[in-house]
Amino acid sequence: MRNLAFRLMYDGTDFHGWQVQPNGITVQECLQDAVQKILGVRENITGCSRTDAGVHANDFCCTLRTQSDIDCYRFVGALNAVLPDSVAVKSCKEMPYDFHPRYDCKSKRYLYRIWNSTSKNPFLKNYAWHYKSYLDAEFLNEQAQQFIGTHDFAGFCSSGSSVEDTVRTIFSCKVIRNGDEVDFYVEGDGFLYNMVRIMVGSLIEISEKRIEKDTLIAIIESKDREKAGRTAPPHGLYLDAVSYGEEEA
Amino acid sequence: MRNLAFRLMYDGTDFHGWQVQPNGITVQECLQDAVQKILGVRENITGCSRTDAGVHANDFCCTLRTQSDIDCYRFVGALNAVLPDSVAVKSCKEMPYDFHPRYDCKSKRYLYRIWNSTSKNPFLKNYAWHYKSYLDAEFLNEQAQQFIGTHDFAGFCSSGSSVEDTVRTIFSCKVIRNGDEVDFYVEGDGFLYNMVRIMVGSLIEISEKRIEKDTLIAIIESKDREKAGRTAPPHGLYLDAVSYGEEEA
Repeated sequence: MRNLAFRLMYDGTDFHGWQVQPNGITVQECLQDAVQKILGVRENITGCSRTDAGVHANDFCCTLRTQSDIDCYRFVGALNAVLPDSVAVKSCKEMPYDFHPRYDCKSKRYLYRIWNSTSKNPFLKNYAWHYKSYLDAEFLNEQAQQFIGTHDFAGFCSSGSSVEDTVRTIFSCKVIRNGDEVDFYVEGDGFLYNMVRIMVGSLIEISEKRIEKDTLIAIIESKDREKAGRTAPPHGLYLDAVSYGEEEA
Repeated sequence: MRNLAFRLMYDGTDFHGWQVQPNGITVQECLQDAVQKILGVRENITGCSRTDAGVHANDFCCTLRTQSDIDCYRFVGALNAVLPDSVAVKSCKEMPYDFHPRYDCKSKRYLYRIWNSTSKNPFLKNYAWHYKSYLDAEFLNEQAQQFIGTHDFAGFCSSGSSVEDTVRTIFSCKVIRNGDEVDFYVEGDGFLYNMVRIMVGSLIEISEKRIEKDTLIAIIESKDREKAGRTAPPHGLYLDAVSYGEEEA
């Protein structure tokens, strides 16, 4: 039995997220359909993360355990030929049988894109949050440094999550302006349900003076969802990089 | 009677081009619907160009002659509030009554975007032509200089055009690589039906050695559509800038 790891890129606009569900088409289902077309059998594909409806991925890792001896390079081409244009397979690599894309993940980086202009941008309608009031990216970058470290992020998690351990370590945070776009990058060992979107919502509320500056650490420690900011919309969010340390998939 | 000039930006993916037609929704129709919602009357809007289905605009100029004394700045906000997210009004300016966005146009610049990688890019599926074989942008840039000047471009025009005068002046051409993207910019006093897409197709065929290098001038002079390259797909094309000289709209 081989364990194949794929790296994907996908436009989440038309998907109900990663995980198979009854109400709409998902990336996982698309990929399982594509594998079935090529190998003739339906196999389960395991992802590194659940992404929500409308959330995108510049980099996503998932695995397939298969008896097939199909060549990795040819498999990439065959999958891309049958997948919709909104999903691209970037690579395929054979991994040890016990490699797991979620449990073995050492770090994940997310990107949140904000189109920060009074004018809307038709080309970014599905790819960035349109926020009209001017954002001081340097100031927000300073504020974002409060997220760094190991904290119990229970207050930065939407209800509906079944996770029991809510302690996560954030390695780095960056807020950068590129013309009319403000990009928020955050890297950590893992993230709770809606955690990045609540981080972005909290930074926005600092900008709006609805959350006082330099109080993020106290808000994290309160573990009170009510004290953190609102949840930023999904279509600005990208799973940007997943890393497995030395045993890179 | 006032003559208001609007500058637009639009994502052409879901439109059957600019001009009102029976078979599908167009940008012109959308804008006339929006104006009707605001002013209560249906008025004709005149565009600077017809763009084809799937073609985009970073900059487009159109005019509305109206009795309304609505303030320009407020009109922009009101239009953006009722227009779909795929169309943005950037500005509105009152122009002399006889200003015409097509006849008074001094130059237009088009951009054609090519995603030049063996891997597809899900985020550019509607915004750039995916061309897999490597393109030498510097070489194509040299070749593109042959388009510059005043020529009869009858051979670079798709059938179905009713234009009689097929002489156009090209001011500048540029082919630039940005990572995995190759961008073709062309500026001129006007363009024939599908002319930019046939220019791009011809450069691609030089790259493929289906058209011999340094023969573009002879092909233009032949006025033979068969000798020029194929028509590149619409979704890589953007009307990038329209200019009116001193009396800028």
